[in-house]
Amino acid sequence: MSETDPSDPSAAPSRPVVRLRPKAEARAIRHGFPWVYADELVTDRRTQALTPGTIATLEDADRRAMATVTVNPKSKIIARVMDRDPGAAIDRDWIAARLAHALELRARLFEAPFYRLIHAEADGLPGVIIDRFGDTAVIQPNAAWSEAMIEDLTAALVAVTGVTTVVKNGSGRARGLEGLPEETVVLQGVVAGPIAVPMNGAIYMADVLGGQKTGLFFDQRPNHAFAARLARGARVLDVFSHVGGFALAALAGGAEAALAVDASAPALELAAEGAAAMGAAERFATRQGDAFATLEALAAEGERFDLVVCDPPAFAPNRQALEAGLRAYERIARLAAPLVAPGGYLVLCSCSHAADLVQFRAASTRGIGRGGRRAQLIHTGYAGPDHPMLPQLAESGYLKSLFFRLD
Amino acid sequence: MSETDPSDPSAAPSRPVVRLRPKAEARAIRHGFPWVYADELVTDRRTQALTPGTIATLEDADRRAMATVTVNPKSKIIARVMDRDPGAAIDRDWIAARLAHALELRARLFEAPFYRLIHAEADGLPGVIIDRFGDTAVIQPNAAWSEAMIEDLTAALVAVTGVTTVVKNGSGRARGLEGLPEETVVLQGVVAGPIAVPMNGAIYMADVLGGQKTGLFFDQRPNHAFAARLARGARVLDVFSHVGGFALAALAGGAEAALAVDASAPALELAAEGAAAMGAAERFATRQGDAFATLEALAAEGERFDLVVCDPPAFAPNRQALEAGLRAYERIARLAAPLVAPGGYLVLCSCSHAADLVQFRAASTRGIGRGGRRAQLIHTGYAGPDHPMLPQLAESGYLKSLFFRLD
Repeated sequence: MSETDPSDPSAAPSRPVVRLRPKAEARAIRHGFPWVYADELVTDRRTQALTPGTIATLEDADRRAMATVTVNPKSKIIARVMDRDPGAAIDRDWIAARLAHALELRARLFEAPFYRLIHAEADGLPGVIIDRFGDTAVIQPNAAWSEAMIEDLTAALVAVTGVTTVVKNGSGRARGLEGLPEETVVLQGVVAGPIAVPMNGAIYMADVLGGQKTGLFFDQRPNHAFAARLARGARVLDVFSHVGGFALAALAGGAEAALAVDASAPALELAAEGAAAMGAAERFATRQGDAFATLEALAAEGERFDLVVCDPPAFAPNRQALEAGLRAYERIARLAAPLVAPGGYLVLCSCSHAADLVQFRAASTRGIGRGGRRAQLIHTGYAGPDHPMLPQLAESGYLKSLFFRLD
Repeated sequence: MSETDPSDPSAAPSRPVVRLRPKAEARAIRHGFPWVYADELVTDRRTQALTPGTIATLEDADRRAMATVTVNPKSKIIARVMDRDPGAAIDRDWIAARLAHALELRARLFEAPFYRLIHAEADGLPGVIIDRFGDTAVIQPNAAWSEAMIEDLTAALVAVTGVTTVVKNGSGRARGLEGLPEETVVLQGVVAGPIAVPMNGAIYMADVLGGQKTGLFFDQRPNHAFAARLARGARVLDVFSHVGGFALAALAGGAEAALAVDASAPALELAAEGAAAMGAAERFATRQGDAFATLEALAAEGERFDLVVCDPPAFAPNRQALEAGLRAYERIARLAAPLVAPGGYLVLCSCSHAADLVQFRAASTRGIGRGGRRAQLIHTGYAGPDHPMLPQLAESGYLKSLFFRLD
């Protein structure tokens, strides 16, 4: 981080200044909380007129400079802290330093360059997600500043990591909240079809242009690995499989057979391609359809599995959806539990921000009980370490994976 | 489990019956909660007079048989559910079946037979801890029934696992709550000094007769493993090291050097023996002393480490100690953070039941801030899967390990 003197006018020429209201929580920001909500900022006409993504200096109510922020008057999160230094110059070098710091962690953790490189605020680039697939990187610029500085971001990314292809993935809910349009384009290089991603001994096919999010969910990596430890010789059912996250890891762990269930035919095709690339096509099967209906159908057919995994989309993405979401998690558990062979394993996942660990665990336990089974809880897993959190924003972690062993 | 007809008098001849009070939570027990508190049971003179550890049939307030329990009128937990079957015979075969079920999980998870085999209620043997060190097993019979049935427990353990040496470790707070005396004896076989335990590529020396608890803490295994991934080329400080848990794992992970700090000279000697057994004696050093004082001394000496781990004893073992305990955790974080080199890692652990994850994380984050540093939280780890929990008793898990990366 640059040690600029904030009183030096050359450091940030004619940079706009925004100011906290008297009752705003300056202390939280001083202690690392990265956001200013719209009702905490003096939103005079000048601030309202700032272009989304403008870099500004944040002052407290007593006009003391606190930090360098990016301002988006269209967002509920009206300002995001970019740097604790109120005079920091936010340019290509600044971005490169953040990328290099993030890369150092991933290079230490992972043998091959397939990981989430930037996890937004916690990696010092507010609102920005970057996933790396070898020589290809996918950027989700979900905050206005990163859309405005996409060229600098791309150039710094290429310089720091050596990737040759950069994709901008502009889909998803987060951009709407910032007033940004949906748009997915190749910014540099060429994408020649799905990319083979090695992870936990499995091979996943990631469609970085047409797939969900950035094409692959790296966050479940440690939970895939844990499931693989339970999979030796097992018959495995992977519900909401997407491109085969748990199923292919289980095959790599020695599963006898794996059945992947998903509503998306293209996702199942990619899963089958991955199984084929692993030389495990004969042990792999898919079934397209609604997850709830398929769980019921499998029960009616008398099917039993040694390892059942349910990794659904967020049933409780926000507070309003919490009650209905918890009921859905309970229902999944109730329908899945009877499919588990005696002494087998049931893995239940939630990526709902609004449902915390205690609520999700209670709903899952209730569902297992209503499914006529008892359980031990042998492991609780979160998103992998390439998805760091700011402790000030940690709450209970959006991703929770519960590993039960049934009686 | 045996499918005994509870109305068949031959199944449980003249077994005592205990009964829930009308307002007791029969539903919780039906849903898997394993304990009956003293104020929930009809404690007439007959029940008061039961020998601690008596096997009985639990009835609800309407005299419907609910479960087989063990009763200890001296304990606040007056009854523990042994079996959902109200007519189950609790004998050597019953114990053997529970042990075999538990062994199946560990055999799947671990390559070598070094693990917690029985984790009390969650493994179906209420109040009983069994740790396995190859051919040796250490039993902590912390509930009265297991003290009374120690011969059956030992015989079943030998039959199911093939261990040749069995130690009874009767130390610790839990036995006091049950009215059991302190006593550690070799029940079978011979203990010829510390046992070499392979774990995460390291070698630990476990003193199963004179050491803390059963001689080694298996619960931190996955957290040791995660720390080892961060340790390549690192200078490592392991505070409250005991027999070298994190330090030796870090050496196995390629640490340049590791310094273990503990108040116990015998523990540090065992740690040094472990390092020597690994061929890593030259990279390993110890420093005996108070942890707080040593952290301050190291700071005064200008020492810096790439990886600092603090794994203290429970500072908040109960609700009364919570506030003081959280202050102690904060102080540890404040003293440790300045010792971490820029971009290095700080691992903070709590094994306090009373301090939940959110409280412990907040105290740690506050301490890091007061130590003048900012942090990312890259991983949250719990006890390993050989320490299963009943979901009904899970709360937030007693063991929490937070992996921070500092700025």
